[in-house]
Amino acid sequence: MASSAAAVVAEAEGEEVTNRQVILKRYVTGCPTVDDMEVVAGAVRLAVPPGSAAVLVKNLYLSCDPFMRTRMTRHSEPGFVPDYVPGKVLDTCNVSKVVLSGHPDFKPGDLLWGVTGWEEYSLIPNPVFCHRINHHEFPLSYYTGVLVGKAKKGEYVFVSAAAGAVGQIVGQLAKLTGCYVVGSAGSDHKVNLLKTKFGFDDAFNYKKELDLNAALKRCFPHGIDVHFENVGGAMLDAVLRNMRPRGRIAVCGQVSQYNLERPDGVDLFQLVGKHIRMEGFLVSEYAGEYYRRFEEEMARYLKEGKVVYVEEVAEGIEAAPAALVGLFAGRNVGKQVVAVARE
Amino acid sequence: MASSAAAVVAEAEGEEVTNRQVILKRYVTGCPTVDDMEVVAGAVRLAVPPGSAAVLVKNLYLSCDPFMRTRMTRHSEPGFVPDYVPGKVLDTCNVSKVVLSGHPDFKPGDLLWGVTGWEEYSLIPNPVFCHRINHHEFPLSYYTGVLVGKAKKGEYVFVSAAAGAVGQIVGQLAKLTGCYVVGSAGSDHKVNLLKTKFGFDDAFNYKKELDLNAALKRCFPHGIDVHFENVGGAMLDAVLRNMRPRGRIAVCGQVSQYNLERPDGVDLFQLVGKHIRMEGFLVSEYAGEYYRRFEEEMARYLKEGKVVYVEEVAEGIEAAPAALVGLFAGRNVGKQVVAVARE
Repeated sequence: MASSAAAVVAEAEGEEVTNRQVILKRYVTGCPTVDDMEVVAGAVRLAVPPGSAAVLVKNLYLSCDPFMRTRMTRHSEPGFVPDYVPGKVLDTCNVSKVVLSGHPDFKPGDLLWGVTGWEEYSLIPNPVFCHRINHHEFPLSYYTGVLVGKAKKGEYVFVSAAAGAVGQIVGQLAKLTGCYVVGSAGSDHKVNLLKTKFGFDDAFNYKKELDLNAALKRCFPHGIDVHFENVGGAMLDAVLRNMRPRGRIAVCGQVSQYNLERPDGVDLFQLVGKHIRMEGFLVSEYAGEYYRRFEEEMARYLKEGKVVYVEEVAEGIEAAPAALVGLFAGRNVGKQVVAVARE
Repeated sequence: MASSAAAVVAEAEGEEVTNRQVILKRYVTGCPTVDDMEVVAGAVRLAVPPGSAAVLVKNLYLSCDPFMRTRMTRHSEPGFVPDYVPGKVLDTCNVSKVVLSGHPDFKPGDLLWGVTGWEEYSLIPNPVFCHRINHHEFPLSYYTGVLVGKAKKGEYVFVSAAAGAVGQIVGQLAKLTGCYVVGSAGSDHKVNLLKTKFGFDDAFNYKKELDLNAALKRCFPHGIDVHFENVGGAMLDAVLRNMRPRGRIAVCGQVSQYNLERPDGVDLFQLVGKHIRMEGFLVSEYAGEYYRRFEEEMARYLKEGKVVYVEEVAEGIEAAPAALVGLFAGRNVGKQVVAVARE
């Protein structure tokens, strides 16, 4: 079906075609459900405004990101990305293919990585934040996280949500750097993958640990130098207690906190006693400077088998709401994407 | 009385004299009270072990520090400084005078800044972490905090607990750097001092603000570049919401959290979206490198009237427990010390 649609595009410039979209139905409280979203059939004209620099793309892979949850709540003040709006299409940083282009840097057939809607076709008025890509298997977030943590050879590195989209790559890059790497995940299957497929030195199932502090002590008798932080709450609190002096925490996400009305408390006084640095980061800050370098390096690692990569692919845009909701139940192993079309 | 005791010392080497001590009576839950401590009359022999490098000091000023509270709870694992032990004397970083010395770097009459007990006389077996001082009016913590925050000219700086021991100096040093400086404090009297005596650009009484977020928005319509963090909890949460991209938070203390069984939650996901760096620090890490520079610079500022300094002096060791407890009620303006002796 996707490929026949693509064939239509080539022959139907100027025509109006169906454009299915995933919209937010209502602001979310607590854990999101599929009923908070809806797949609706909109329409799009296969054209870019004459004289504009817009590009029309066909979305291939939609990225399911836990932090989308934070945009489903209405905030009284603006965050770093706008809240989603009920009745409007969701968006994330997706992989798409250029159908029509008014921009000199992009031509039909180019693969792009950039913000597009959760829909079959997106019109990007100004593709300034789009990157033409050769490899669409890996988001830049993997790379930037490693840069922020500044893990050095021989250091002790802990990755929470280690079998997720970002964690799997962060851990492997830390191993390539020569670190001792331990990850946590939410099932025995994932823990097994970490230790075998991804080459972590050790891993534990946080759902089976009665005491996260004790689990970290067991895995890190000498403490943690660098923590790649995806989770927040009780896990972060236990990590803080096990950090070594001058440790660094690269804050990528806080997935355990997104569905809460009030955040869990963690003992931030630990920062003082051990001179810990905790630093957040966003992919977008690094994209311009590092994207090409990242792409080349990662392509080489993948080709050489030094990094392996797992993704969970949901088929078709109708599957998108359930794929997103599944993130919070830990259903995905590795990166969760939705394949809207294959080409 | 203090001076007559000093006279006795000079003539009584080898004698045993009374040594009043403030001991912890029991581990503390919630807010500390004077009944959690006790002043007992011990004894000390005015001598240092022959052939040792020990020094015997007479304590002049005891430093009352909010973080002492964290040491009054029994922890299952060691922190950066040991917990206090019931029945044993409290200690902090105090100002003392050398009575007898077996160490070549120190001689009788030298003023020292370093860890000693809350008692009249302390024997320091190895005075390696003691600094000989010329000016005992200001602790090094003021200086190190400013270094960590890396505030630059023209930046917006917020100081919580700004009329406290550390805040008063941090704010004035930020002003000297050319920053726009706002402080919060817990009484109108303190707020008035911040705006008049300490030269802050603005200040507010957090107890009178219904909405800390709104208060910060009013004072910082463009947001906060550097926050000097003394408080934690709801104040820190509001600060995080008002930080500018690439903002820095120097974590000195978390005074609102020390009496709680479980820490308050703050929205740490804010770190991610704005790439905020949050970094704890300890005076002791900087003491070796910066103490002399700090002392010279601060002495000059005080002499030139560029920095003013307020302290609250409680008289006599018997007043020490109440002085400490008073910190948590916000009774002190500026640095709270206990004058055990004047010379």
